[in-house]
Amino acid sequence: MGATIALDAMGGDFAPANPVAGAILAARELGSRVILVGRQDEIERELGRHGAPDSSLSVVHASEAVAMDEAPAMALRRKKDSSLRVAANLVHEGKADALVSAGNSGAVMATAVFVLGTVEGVDRPALAAVVPNLRGRSVWLDVGANVDSKPQHIHQWAVMAHIYSRNILGIEQPRVGLLSIGEEAGKGNDLVRETFKLLKESGLNFIGNVEGHDIFNGNADVIVCDGFTGNVSLKVIESATQTLFHFLRQEFARSWRTRLGYLLSRPAFKGFKKRTDYAEFGGVPLLGVRGATIISHGRSSPRAIRNAIRVAGEVVDHRVNQQIQDEIRKGSHGVQTVTA
Amino acid sequence: MGATIALDAMGGDFAPANPVAGAILAARELGSRVILVGRQDEIERELGRHGAPDSSLSVVHASEAVAMDEAPAMALRRKKDSSLRVAANLVHEGKADALVSAGNSGAVMATAVFVLGTVEGVDRPALAAVVPNLRGRSVWLDVGANVDSKPQHIHQWAVMAHIYSRNILGIEQPRVGLLSIGEEAGKGNDLVRETFKLLKESGLNFIGNVEGHDIFNGNADVIVCDGFTGNVSLKVIESATQTLFHFLRQEFARSWRTRLGYLLSRPAFKGFKKRTDYAEFGGVPLLGVRGATIISHGRSSPRAIRNAIRVAGEVVDHRVNQQIQDEIRKGSHGVQTVTA
Repeated sequence: MGATIALDAMGGDFAPANPVAGAILAARELGSRVILVGRQDEIERELGRHGAPDSSLSVVHASEAVAMDEAPAMALRRKKDSSLRVAANLVHEGKADALVSAGNSGAVMATAVFVLGTVEGVDRPALAAVVPNLRGRSVWLDVGANVDSKPQHIHQWAVMAHIYSRNILGIEQPRVGLLSIGEEAGKGNDLVRETFKLLKESGLNFIGNVEGHDIFNGNADVIVCDGFTGNVSLKVIESATQTLFHFLRQEFARSWRTRLGYLLSRPAFKGFKKRTDYAEFGGVPLLGVRGATIISHGRSSPRAIRNAIRVAGEVVDHRVNQQIQDEIRKGSHGVQTVTA
Repeated sequence: MGATIALDAMGGDFAPANPVAGAILAARELGSRVILVGRQDEIERELGRHGAPDSSLSVVHASEAVAMDEAPAMALRRKKDSSLRVAANLVHEGKADALVSAGNSGAVMATAVFVLGTVEGVDRPALAAVVPNLRGRSVWLDVGANVDSKPQHIHQWAVMAHIYSRNILGIEQPRVGLLSIGEEAGKGNDLVRETFKLLKESGLNFIGNVEGHDIFNGNADVIVCDGFTGNVSLKVIESATQTLFHFLRQEFARSWRTRLGYLLSRPAFKGFKKRTDYAEFGGVPLLGVRGATIISHGRSSPRAIRNAIRVAGEVVDHRVNQQIQDEIRKGSHGVQTVTA
């Protein structure tokens, strides 16, 4: 019996159209069970546009929606009947196993932590980006759930990502690297040097400091860093690649020869897109929160939503958060909590 | 009368071949005067391979070379006759105006600071990456000279980059942004929040927090951040783009159609490379050090060296470091030094 996913149907730049279309894709292609949460009339109108309703999709009404630019704390305090809040409640009440939202990511994090609570032994949840590398996929965290982080937090994240890499990506002994500005043990800022010591003693397969290039070359399976560095770098990459492809498109447009070249090359660009498009990766898991929460890009396409639902199901089926709790409770990997 | 550049001919992965070839390009194409510093016999052999010696090139012998992986402090202490050290001495003695090296960047920074000293009023020099954006170029610093930074340091860097942007890139009122994880004033870690206050009071054209995407979209002319975040992000970009193009090449290789497409598209890829290749940007200025120091990529091609020599000349001609000293001494932009 697969997982049931509570989908924030009003979350994202193209809601409810894309969340609803994504849920339909997930139901038809993956057999997912999805509860669409949001304004019932709007959701049903969207469902109607796609033909016969699917028996694995249901709707739960919520009267409000959190805006993309709304302050998370305000959304949490004031919008008790938002689609996001009601979806999180469904997970809390055991009516759903996981929460998926392409909405305001700060509000999704705040709501998930408030309603669902953190996994026992985890002080701070973290956002884990799963990125393609030359050999497979790496798990990189924290990419934005936290601003000021302590060495113990980063140590906990290493354990969480190690379990994600092992259980979801099937990597038996994930190599854990600490993101820094040089590979030698002493290199880095104070936070990195302190964290290095904890990871070295942890019993994890810690390979030491890694640098920015190791995120994509496959030299590490898990890369940990503080949430500020992770978030800034992730956005820098997103923007750098967009700008590069913008330049490339301009160059292709310069002559008939290169335009023809582009037409012939289209399958290559399509294949490339499939390999690197965030839509294929299905959102970013918020690790360390009870149940399972997947945050999708605000501009998520139906396909991105479908894949986020798929990833949410995998996190539930592989009992990722339960494993995190068990391994931390057992004292595996030498984790210490800050708020003991 | 142009500047005289002291070039570390033994620095970089392809030394002395590429530095010597780059110096010849600079002499022939730009009329630069370059002192090649390093093992005289090796340099002269390389010069010989390129035909008649150029009167604007001279050689100063240095018996040692700093290895790419040598600890900077050790290189500084033990290798008193390294090509790097002797080149820095030439600038210190006024026999050259600027230092260019593609060698061990930690050693270049340590040697430049030790031999040349910092500009009065500057506590910490910073590495400034000059990157292409959708509208022109941005100056982004610190990308790696410092690990733990204080708000006052970042404030000083904002002033330095503002002067670089104005004097070298010709931007009259450079818009200064502070790299963070959200645009609102309160967003960021403790360091960002403290720095925000200083920049707000500075009288610089401070546009507030910017995010990773603003480095490449042209919304800011100057982007400041701590050296850890800058260095990690810069390396992440380098690697992400390499990996993306690796994937793209693999996709192009899949069929005859796409291979033909690639052949037709080559001018587009060439134009793209010219616009984005670091070799065209000519190295990274180390701002805040007396004289002028340009650090080139370890894998610098002759063309990259030639362009680093060009940039070094510009920094000297536009009196960038003198201006930094003057404006900081005048108390412009509200700069306070940490070590008063």
